[in-house]
Amino acid sequence: MEIAPYRTIGRLTRYWQTLSDLDSEGHSHIYSHLLAAKARVSAAQVRRDLMILGYTGTPARGYEVKKLKQHIEAFVFPKNEQRAAIAGVGNIGLAILKYFTGRRPSLRITASFEVNPEKYDRLIHGCRCYSIEAASEIIQEQGITVGVIAVPDREAQYVSNVFVGAGIRGILNFARTPLQTPPGVYVEDIDLAMSMDRVVYFACQSLKSENPTSSVYKESNS
Amino acid sequence: MEIAPYRTIGRLTRYWQTLSDLDSEGHSHIYSHLLAAKARVSAAQVRRDLMILGYTGTPARGYEVKKLKQHIEAFVFPKNEQRAAIAGVGNIGLAILKYFTGRRPSLRITASFEVNPEKYDRLIHGCRCYSIEAASEIIQEQGITVGVIAVPDREAQYVSNVFVGAGIRGILNFARTPLQTPPGVYVEDIDLAMSMDRVVYFACQSLKSENPTSSVYKESNS
Repeated sequence: MEIAPYRTIGRLTRYWQTLSDLDSEGHSHIYSHLLAAKARVSAAQVRRDLMILGYTGTPARGYEVKKLKQHIEAFVFPKNEQRAAIAGVGNIGLAILKYFTGRRPSLRITASFEVNPEKYDRLIHGCRCYSIEAASEIIQEQGITVGVIAVPDREAQYVSNVFVGAGIRGILNFARTPLQTPPGVYVEDIDLAMSMDRVVYFACQSLKSENPTSSVYKESNS
Repeated sequence: MEIAPYRTIGRLTRYWQTLSDLDSEGHSHIYSHLLAAKARVSAAQVRRDLMILGYTGTPARGYEVKKLKQHIEAFVFPKNEQRAAIAGVGNIGLAILKYFTGRRPSLRITASFEVNPEKYDRLIHGCRCYSIEAASEIIQEQGITVGVIAVPDREAQYVSNVFVGAGIRGILNFARTPLQTPPGVYVEDIDLAMSMDRVVYFACQSLKSENPTSSVYKESNS
């Protein structure tokens, strides 16, 4: 089966979510243009993305909701449950741990790691917390393939090295440190501070443009 | 002053963070190629991004850390403190509230909104929690310009309408619902589930490629 590009996988999981909602609302079929509108992409994009699955709807009734959902599941989600670990159970780490508990198909966070001795040897949201020194052993023992990094920035590269050395091949990174990883390891960064700075910047520019004293932005956006 | 594109603002805030770290470690100068390496972009990219600020370093010593930091601040961060509100103080909302308290220049989260009466009329991390019905009034009273949406997906569009109607011009959206907003409102989506699905997908593909039974991926990546 062919490997889908980065953006396609993102959109497929979004369609999957939309189809799950439609299914639970009792809808049996959906047209590509309606699925597109719900996912905020073009209908042509939806059809291109779904071609990769080898599934087509009918012009009369559109896609079958349950079937299309299953096709996306078979393509995107792993057949066997994947295990994940999270390093750092501060505010963000705890929120992520709780957020993902039981939420995604084929994914279970089975271990968390901390440097703070007060936190380890405990169950946190049903997930045992270990010392970071034990990480390598636990990851290999449990066959963990996915890691979440929610430690302070200066510890992120160290944790990443431990994760990759122990066999982890996909990392969701909340630290602001750009990680150095070998080929074959996929890293997705979520930089909350960068996103917030951007929202604040564009909100301010928008307010300035509503104020006639700053004409430059107004011209470039009208 | 010209409006910088989306990606440039993201990189400028990353340089700012790197320069803050360098400054606190006592470094006075940095060469563009070292700044580039720390931010994981090319040196040419750094120089292009910094041209927008009208600040150049010297070939002999590179950029002055403190000065460059100030130039980025003046460009990216608002002169006056901006106020933000957050809707939804569940796991993610609370983590975000705590994460951003005192962390970004010129930003303060001054109000939070909830539908759950057990949560409102309380101070959460120094931020008062109000009923969502009061949101419009509070936002206007406090001059809030930035909103964070951390409510369940089905409530996100409603909250977005309230936010925009009350004058908010930038939204950080953690709900999976693609928001419909008028022109002039900037929305940045953080889709945790999509990001995690992608990490799991590519981790599995990488493991398959290490396993010689699936040759297709191996070929396409070697």
